Amino acid sequence: MAQKTALIVFAHQSPASFNAAVLDVSVQELTQQGYRVIVSDLYATNFRANATRDDIIGDLRNPDLFQYGEETMWAWKERRLSSDIMEEQRKVEEAELVIFQFPLYWFSVPAVMKGWMDRVLTQGFAFSLEKMYNNGIFKDKKAMLSFTTGATQTMFQADGINGDINVTLWPLQNGTLHFCGFQVLAPQIFWSPAHCPAAGRAAMLEAWRARLKGLQEEKPLTFAPCELFDLSFAGGFLLRPEVKKEKELQPFGITTGHHLGKPLPPDNQTRASQDQEPGCSSNL
Amino acid sequence: MAQKTALIVFAHQSPASFNAAVLDVSVQELTQQGYRVIVSDLYATNFRANATRDDIIGDLRNPDLFQYGEETMWAWKERRLSSDIMEEQRKVEEAELVIFQFPLYWFSVPAVMKGWMDRVLTQGFAFSLEKMYNNGIFKDKKAMLSFTTGATQTMFQADGINGDINVTLWPLQNGTLHFCGFQVLAPQIFWSPAHCPAAGRAAMLEAWRARLKGLQEEKPLTFAPCELFDLSFAGGFLLRPEVKKEKELQPFGITTGHHLGKPLPPDNQTRASQDQEPGCSSNL
Repeated sequence: MAQKTALIVFAHQSPASFNAAVLDVSVQELTQQGYRVIVSDLYATNFRANATRDDIIGDLRNPDLFQYGEETMWAWKERRLSSDIMEEQRKVEEAELVIFQFPLYWFSVPAVMKGWMDRVLTQGFAFSLEKMYNNGIFKDKKAMLSFTTGATQTMFQADGINGDINVTLWPLQNGTLHFCGFQVLAPQIFWSPAHCPAAGRAAMLEAWRARLKGLQEEKPLTFAPCELFDLSFAGGFLLRPEVKKEKELQPFGITTGHHLGKPLPPDNQTRASQDQEPGCSSNL
Repeated sequence: MAQKTALIVFAHQSPASFNAAVLDVSVQELTQQGYRVIVSDLYATNFRANATRDDIIGDLRNPDLFQYGEETMWAWKERRLSSDIMEEQRKVEEAELVIFQFPLYWFSVPAVMKGWMDRVLTQGFAFSLEKMYNNGIFKDKKAMLSFTTGATQTMFQADGINGDINVTLWPLQNGTLHFCGFQVLAPQIFWSPAHCPAAGRAAMLEAWRARLKGLQEEKPLTFAPCELFDLSFAGGFLLRPEVKKEKELQPFGITTGHHLGKPLPPDNQTRASQDQEPGCSSNL
């Protein structure tokens, strides 16, 4: 059996940080499990975040109106993307598991990591109009957000000052990772390590190590499979009428975003559903 | 009366783009209304997105463990932030109105604009532990997202393939803009202009111009005021028990994020509530 590969996309400036300590645990533990572990250290390599014309080698299709999405789609097809993007794309292709390790900045990833998403996940490589969500290009890969917060856990509850963390994670987990097909594992959230005594931080690292040991058996989060929708412009990419009727009888919405005017399914973006078959995020 | 100032933070690579056409309308119309309009053209100025040690002039407080939030807080106090950050902060200080103009990338702002948020909105300048949300530093300023999408409007409904746009906008509008105190005006969403005939795009621009004429009278979106919460570590930054009890009798949650296990208040992040007094986003 071929060796498995894990990619960790890492965004912290300091090797002395808690994020770096988490990274170390991940590398150790995954290596011990037989993974080849690749780390993309975005700050150390000064990864460019800005999506610009320089990402395309050679002429543009339409130099009069630069459209980044279009131009990078063609450049991907013709292998004319800049070398830093091509290198990251090769890593993603080789990986069965991609972990994003970062401190939460403004309810999201730091700009350098947003730049990785904007530039690496080009049309054609990471998605197409036919291949998205549970039919997406990376549907045989797993991805996961692992991040530290400044806020405490209760601040990110539905009755906490910042509101429900499940809502905050939707654009990243549904809109980015699952959009490209990734099976998304529950996020690993390190709540406010900076305000924790050293023993607390050490316990967090050990809990992470323990989780990593069982990671391969984890079920992914639940999203809404494409088959529920009429994926045509005529049908508006909306839920099929018979599905909508059936779902409207349920006490909860389908997902955090597909709530249908009902209460959100609890912990939809933070915990894998217990009552589904392994890996069947597409069998709602 | 002193002249009013508007700041437009702009993130598109091409002056021939629809985003640039929207920017032109904004500049024209706001100028006509007597605003001094400042444009921060992030790509044209090659604005740095990455949050690094270079953002601090002189020595670090803790060179052994670089913590960006801490170091920039001190550097702001001591006027030792890099000149590009200080310049943007001056613009924000002068502006009564800040408009973010961009194409939606991965359910969020492009990395270069995320970098603007990460680097410019430093602790001390944009928020403090005492001053946030409706008590935030920029509570007398208005802010607004104005963006184009690739997706159609129905794709971003709660029963559409991408889920509810109100959920997608939460981290930006609540977690970033309102966190700093901004009164957030309803977003201006240009749905899929690239797939629209020229006449459709022209109509979108005219609708935008018409909206701008009435912008000063618009009510902001509704968020959860700090006064509803026990803002102490002992109280967990959670809703006060008596508030929670009262809100649980209501048919809807308070906001998209503060849903309390109830259906989300419809259009909470896309439309100003009609039944509130002008400007009273803090009087739920």
